[in-house]
Amino acid sequence: MPFSTRIKIRFGDTDPAGLVYYPNIFHYFHIAMEEFFSTQCGVGYDQLLAAERIGFPTVNIQTEFRAPILYGDELDVEVFVSRPGRTSAIFEYRVTRVSDGQLCAQSTQVHVAMNLDTRRPVPLPEKFREAFGDDAA
Amino acid sequence: MPFSTRIKIRFGDTDPAGLVYYPNIFHYFHIAMEEFFSTQCGVGYDQLLAAERIGFPTVNIQTEFRAPILYGDELDVEVFVSRPGRTSAIFEYRVTRVSDGQLCAQSTQVHVAMNLDTRRPVPLPEKFREAFGDDAA
Amino acid sequence: MPFSTRIKIRFGDTDPAGLVYYPNIFHYFHIAMEEFFSTQCGVGYDQLLAAERIGFPTVNIQTEFRAPILYGDELDVEVFVSRPGRTSAIFEYRVTRVSDGQLCAQSTQVHVAMNLDTRRPVPLPEKFREAFGDDAA
Amino acid sequence: MPFSTRIKIRFGDTDPAGLVYYPNIFHYFHIAMEEFFSTQCGVGYDQLLAAERIGFPTVNIQTEFRAPILYGDELDVEVFVSRPGRTSAIFEYRVTRVSDGQLCAQSTQVHVAMNLDTRRPVPLPEKFREAFGDDAA
Repeated sequence: MPFSTRIKIRFGDTDPAGLVYYPNIFHYFHIAMEEFFSTQCGVGYDQLLAAERIGFPTVNIQTEFRAPILYGDELDVEVFVSRPGRTSAIFEYRVTRVSDGQLCAQSTQVHVAMNLDTRRPVPLPEKFREAFGDDAA
Repeated sequence: MPFSTRIKIRFGDTDPAGLVYYPNIFHYFHIAMEEFFSTQCGVGYDQLLAAERIGFPTVNIQTEFRAPILYGDELDVEVFVSRPGRTSAIFEYRVTRVSDGQLCAQSTQVHVAMNLDTRRPVPLPEKFREAFGDDAA
Repeated sequence: MPFSTRIKIRFGDTDPAGLVYYPNIFHYFHIAMEEFFSTQCGVGYDQLLAAERIGFPTVNIQTEFRAPILYGDELDVEVFVSRPGRTSAIFEYRVTRVSDGQLCAQSTQVHVAMNLDTRRPVPLPEKFREAFGDDAA
Repeated sequence: MPFSTRIKIRFGDTDPAGLVYYPNIFHYFHIAMEEFFSTQCGVGYDQLLAAERIGFPTVNIQTEFRAPILYGDELDVEVFVSRPGRTSAIFEYRVTRVSDGQLCAQSTQVHVAMNLDTRRPVPLPEKFREAFGDDAA
């Protein structure tokens, strides 16, 4: 079962057309990623930044928006991590509307482990390999 | 020459890692699209929404982030529209740092002409075909 | 007991100084107001906008920030409504950090009932008078 | 003459009611403050943070919204600094719509000079006293 985070669409997230302003959907992906770290990797993303000075910025994104997301909607954002490499992993996100199960968006993103001080890629911490779906872990 | 919009990175756009929080880069793409409508299509995006009830939401995105964008940077966001179809067109965005010409991000996005009341696709307005690079226009 | 909403501070809410970028704290107040409508007034703010074309924009704000709010913090945002007038009411917000009970911010805001089409003030709907603390209700 | 910054309202700044979502107006105040530092104080706010590790968070806000701000509006945000104390100063902001000179918002904010590492107040740097309107400077 992929990990999932529930998000409630807020007034300020939506635009004059009544739809979620699409940059905010990337904010939802990031929130889901933060929850993934807390619950699946055993470390808050905030602690990872502060204590280990490692972040996971996105370097490549492919996203499809399948159905409009409206003010008042509740969403489930699933996160599934695959193909961990030396310094990066692929995060797959699926956004489903809770009320009717409609798939609203899906996104494939390459996240790179980065040292926040040098801003250079670093090897994926070993302790994340299992949560990241590495069969060899 | 592609159309270009200058964007100044603001304190509130950046994150604890000192980089632009990546959903904001999609906000910059949208600002550049709005400027493209005002200056290349002869109609403000605000007027398009209000008077014609047409918007251009994004349905598909491919984006590559090539270099970190920092607080204090100024960016040029180029917009180039290609391959207008019946109800959609492809917008290409290229983000370059002004100070050193570094290519920071590029994005290919499918925008669909949508009636804001029915939320259904509508034919691209004829008057946009030239700005949208339709050779047959 | 005042009504309260729990908010989790996200990576994207915080700035290069490691603190919540203060405009986002006003976003939290608004989220708490939306939850207040859903749970105390018996109508979602989204439905209020859509069905009755009434919104409650803020026209006057007094806010004190008492302690920095950091990435990783969880907050309780209390909402207390007082002194409903003919077309406006005063919303009091208190933001407390969950971990240590620290009062981080408090805000007094005048919200006006506004018809979204005319953008003119309208009388407070009778049905809200009890939730709004009108003793005469 | 007070210092002024021009701001263009963007699609993503506005809400389903067609008005600027009010937390974004605080973002505009902050942008105007950043420009005030660059042009009046001789140091970019980004450089101030990076080189001197000093920021100017807001600890107290009084704001009045006088007229709705709409998508497509352009604003002038005036900044006037007064009453510099030992560690704080008062920033006054006035937001005027360019098209018709309508005063849309005004805000009085107490900003405190803060060391970003200790998160404690520090004396206002001497070099800012003139730009901050200290007659004794």
